[in-house]
Amino acid sequence: MQKVESPRVVIVGGGFAGLAAARALRKAPLAVILIDRQNYHLFQPLLYQVATASLSSNEIAYPIRSIVRRQDNINVVMAEVMSIDVDGHKVVLRDGDVGYDYLIVATGVRHSYFGHSEWERLAPGLKDLADALEIRRRVLCAFEQAEFESDPSKRQSLLTFVIVGAGPTGVELAGAMGELACNVLRRDFRRIDPRTARIILAEAGPRVLPGFPEDLSSRAEDTLRKLCVEVRLNCTVTSIDPENVVIGSEAVRSATVIWAAGVEASPLARSIGADVDQKGRVLVEPDLSVPGHPEIFVVGDLSAFVHQTGEPLPGLAPVAVQQGRHAALNIIRSYKGLQSRPFHYVDRGVLATIGRGAAVAQVGRLKFWGLPAWIVWVLVHIFQLIGFRNRFVVMFEWAWSYVTYKRSARLIVGTCQEQGGQDR
Amino acid sequence: MQKVESPRVVIVGGGFAGLAAARALRKAPLAVILIDRQNYHLFQPLLYQVATASLSSNEIAYPIRSIVRRQDNINVVMAEVMSIDVDGHKVVLRDGDVGYDYLIVATGVRHSYFGHSEWERLAPGLKDLADALEIRRRVLCAFEQAEFESDPSKRQSLLTFVIVGAGPTGVELAGAMGELACNVLRRDFRRIDPRTARIILAEAGPRVLPGFPEDLSSRAEDTLRKLCVEVRLNCTVTSIDPENVVIGSEAVRSATVIWAAGVEASPLARSIGADVDQKGRVLVEPDLSVPGHPEIFVVGDLSAFVHQTGEPLPGLAPVAVQQGRHAALNIIRSYKGLQSRPFHYVDRGVLATIGRGAAVAQVGRLKFWGLPAWIVWVLVHIFQLIGFRNRFVVMFEWAWSYVTYKRSARLIVGTCQEQGGQDR
Repeated sequence: MQKVESPRVVIVGGGFAGLAAARALRKAPLAVILIDRQNYHLFQPLLYQVATASLSSNEIAYPIRSIVRRQDNINVVMAEVMSIDVDGHKVVLRDGDVGYDYLIVATGVRHSYFGHSEWERLAPGLKDLADALEIRRRVLCAFEQAEFESDPSKRQSLLTFVIVGAGPTGVELAGAMGELACNVLRRDFRRIDPRTARIILAEAGPRVLPGFPEDLSSRAEDTLRKLCVEVRLNCTVTSIDPENVVIGSEAVRSATVIWAAGVEASPLARSIGADVDQKGRVLVEPDLSVPGHPEIFVVGDLSAFVHQTGEPLPGLAPVAVQQGRHAALNIIRSYKGLQSRPFHYVDRGVLATIGRGAAVAQVGRLKFWGLPAWIVWVLVHIFQLIGFRNRFVVMFEWAWSYVTYKRSARLIVGTCQEQGGQDR
Repeated sequence: MQKVESPRVVIVGGGFAGLAAARALRKAPLAVILIDRQNYHLFQPLLYQVATASLSSNEIAYPIRSIVRRQDNINVVMAEVMSIDVDGHKVVLRDGDVGYDYLIVATGVRHSYFGHSEWERLAPGLKDLADALEIRRRVLCAFEQAEFESDPSKRQSLLTFVIVGAGPTGVELAGAMGELACNVLRRDFRRIDPRTARIILAEAGPRVLPGFPEDLSSRAEDTLRKLCVEVRLNCTVTSIDPENVVIGSEAVRSATVIWAAGVEASPLARSIGADVDQKGRVLVEPDLSVPGHPEIFVVGDLSAFVHQTGEPLPGLAPVAVQQGRHAALNIIRSYKGLQSRPFHYVDRGVLATIGRGAAVAQVGRLKFWGLPAWIVWVLVHIFQLIGFRNRFVVMFEWAWSYVTYKRSARLIVGTCQEQGGQDR
């Protein structure tokens, strides 16, 4: 008796969407291959806390193999996918390729510098663990160097931090930076007063958190101002060099610039050959498949899916999880000879945190802010973290820093001389 | 009324010795400057647990500024000391210099490749956090690449790990590697069985743990063998290249070699101009000062101090702490116009751990091993960790991995393609 091989599902990307798809396939009679260039799944919503020294890497990252160790139909491959051979039904790796019967592409987005790729080195963005550790190094080094700098103008430049873009990431980063300067580091230096640090949040649009209702935006802005953050609205950044950032018409001397302004699709989108939107995201069918290729699904941030309301869906974790799961279900249906079903997003609301005990939230028609929103934010994030251990440790870290105003991950690994990419 | 400036004590190095000296000076009417090239104090005895993915960086490293934040007479400077100008009474930094009235040098040791500096890149040693993260990356990548390797001989090379040197670091690394392969990773791979990994511990001398009593050495060796570690005694490593290690007369194909064989003094020792021993360590006076320079003290691993028994003291944390404290007390005595006192080491015993519930210990005439020694080891290390938070989190990590056989820090940051120095 010859064993018939199960159809093979290849999932590219182990983020929220890819992992949700893999888990939804756990009981299917399919052979699943999950490919990611990292060996871990990253809980991206808390990445800014690594960048600002509150959490350490292993508290928000979890080995993919561990997550799926009990799922017998899955193989995890740590490799970089170079392109997709749509006609040959295979994904091309750096060395070798992997054939598929069904393909789920979930490689997400990177930051976009709107044509100024030379800014990337000067103003790192925040998308993966390496970015977060690099931002952490730059921020902590700036304070160390300021302590030792005798020239007052250079010292002020070292103590000036500019965050470009006031979406959730920019707002969360700015709030956490404000707390770092005003509370955490307050007593640790002898020559400088970290409270004199300037944290500037520059936003091209008219308000912070553009995806939120207007009144929550203005509450978030108030809270940021209380945390010593200077909010500059309607200000485009037109130039970044090693010494200055031009915000609107003003040149600000700043040694540390962080980019949170825009995203563009992972380059893999192009090799699928489908139509993309202006951010390079793949325009998918209502069932999340690629037009003309019912065997290929694009989910998560990489997918440009137009909501039932006519608006494109935002790049949020809940969207990614629901889409990943839905693509998996459509693959199971197709395998059973059933028609695929269109995707519908169940919107459970939006949440953003600004600082200690401060957040804004919208759940359905309900809006809330301050401590209640923050408690909801903490609970939601704790429960979504993978694995009991991480939940417990993160909760302990938060409680600890809430009580003591200390941050445990204040380590500069590498030196302060080097620029970019070299440290860990 | 003119303010008289306090005499200035400069401490170079924020390890066990330097930090103990800084703390012992906390009530002295002296201005203390503590210089380290890192911003953290590292709990080196647990570094091998970072290298083998049990603990994360911030659990064994602590910002120096935080440790001394309440000590008003201290300034912390993050900088690299290039040399010491003994005649000019100043330490020379990369940019600028710092004058001193008293100087404590505590910059420790680095690994020594016995003239084969080309081995460093191929066989990293374990002295700082960057080393530990690099070893962790190499070990985890080897398993990932083996899973994907179809050539059986290359696969076996990826699954062969050679540790050179069976002192405490080598033994602890080998034991932890054995557990990683045999327990932790057991279920996580589909094509390879991590239990087929070979872990080879090569030692030039006739037994493991040469600094321990002979019967404890043989117990440690038995325990290592039970953890699937191949112990090769009386075997010198004569060649290392990217594919092979020659151990004794046998060439072993191995993709991952770790160096734990020898140490040499930090190059700063030479710029003091005093006599050094064959490892480059400064031969100090009985009061720990440098001959001819009663204002300069050398303490910790960098100091070659001949014990009251005629033997040189080993490079252990308790020696460093006691010496750091003693140098500080002699500086206070000198400031008061009193004569300095000779150093006497209070030997509280030696401890080494091999694995889960297995360690060897000698306290005075008492020797013990197995679970009792391991419990002592856990308690001693927990109580020496700085700060309540780290103690608590490390205890939780240990309990967690003891119960679940999981390791939380299994993250490859960076990629597996790159060789050396690039990842974080």
